[in-house]
Amino acid sequence: MTVYGDEKSGNCYKIKLTLALLKIDYQWFDIDIMAGGTQTKAFLAKNPNGKLPVIELDDGRVLAESNAIIGYLAAGSALIPGDEFNKALMYQWLFFEQYSHEPCIAVARFIKLYQGMPVERQAEFERLQIQGDKVLKLLDNQLVGQAFMIGEQFSLADIALYAYTHVAHEGGFDLSLYPNIQQWLANIESQAGFVSMLD
Amino acid sequence: MTVYGDEKSGNCYKIKLTLALLKIDYQWFDIDIMAGGTQTKAFLAKNPNGKLPVIELDDGRVLAESNAIIGYLAAGSALIPGDEFNKALMYQWLFFEQYSHEPCIAVARFIKLYQGMPVERQAEFERLQIQGDKVLKLLDNQLVGQAFMIGEQFSLADIALYAYTHVAHEGGFDLSLYPNIQQWLANIESQAGFVSMLD
Repeated sequence: MTVYGDEKSGNCYKIKLTLALLKIDYQWFDIDIMAGGTQTKAFLAKNPNGKLPVIELDDGRVLAESNAIIGYLAAGSALIPGDEFNKALMYQWLFFEQYSHEPCIAVARFIKLYQGMPVERQAEFERLQIQGDKVLKLLDNQLVGQAFMIGEQFSLADIALYAYTHVAHEGGFDLSLYPNIQQWLANIESQAGFVSMLD
Repeated sequence: MTVYGDEKSGNCYKIKLTLALLKIDYQWFDIDIMAGGTQTKAFLAKNPNGKLPVIELDDGRVLAESNAIIGYLAAGSALIPGDEFNKALMYQWLFFEQYSHEPCIAVARFIKLYQGMPVERQAEFERLQIQGDKVLKLLDNQLVGQAFMIGEQFSLADIALYAYTHVAHEGGFDLSLYPNIQQWLANIESQAGFVSMLD
């Protein structure tokens, strides 16, 4: 299996972390988003949506969307609850991550860290700070008295939300305001097989 | 089971359509988004993210995020492929819908139909038209020579993408440009048990 990814992207890191935790072998093919690597004819033939990450199986089949990919990789493993309702709660947090969390936290990080805070995005950045703090507060409340997002079972919900939460400070957010998030980050980092984003 | 929804919302319609196709009984509790119904203390106790739809099981357990809800309702049915890769492709399109499709098509519709195109959102609306047409073109290409999003099997990918695509004209998009989408809409509408958004 080949993973097409950019190591600076939290969405790509989800795949790397899931594969490491599951001890699955793969090849990594680096694509530089900032250099236009996702908009080439060759890449668009793999993913017409022009986004990373993408995985390509040895038989040539291709799968896109980070949270769909980790769902595929982890099928049948302990990273996905067996109980249907808990599995649905896991997916609830995966969709929350893509719709409500990533568009604040990851986009703020992109503007600050990679674009160097251009003037024309400053008003948007300020809005994202307010929205992002609401999202982090919601996560912090969810984590009161429980080790992981859906209780005591470490799942894909934690992997997906960890990806951009643990680098939220690079997007201007102050994680010291959220003690339950800090404990949860440590819980994830202590999992056997854990690898960090830039390992 | 109780569904908390707003009948004008495509995200809520996904639940109604899935339940009708699966012939599952439920109660519908109407909440008016425009009147602030998702920001009351009572509603935020059910979903701290303040978004519809939400389902509440008879034992009080609550689930949010439209695509997680339909995944739960349809578990074990023919609306979810049994094959792991095809199931992952279905989820790929569900995440695509929430990240790339809904934020263009549904938001343009909201600005035009429900907000009456306020001056301060006009530039955003113009951007959404360009992005939304790219998304519709991508869907139209995907549907060349196949009846449904992941081939010949009608799945949750079709239900999720149908919800806002079939009302895209209300957001300023011209569906007559996309013949494969038009055929696909008709394929979905001919499914046994189909109900329309305002039925």
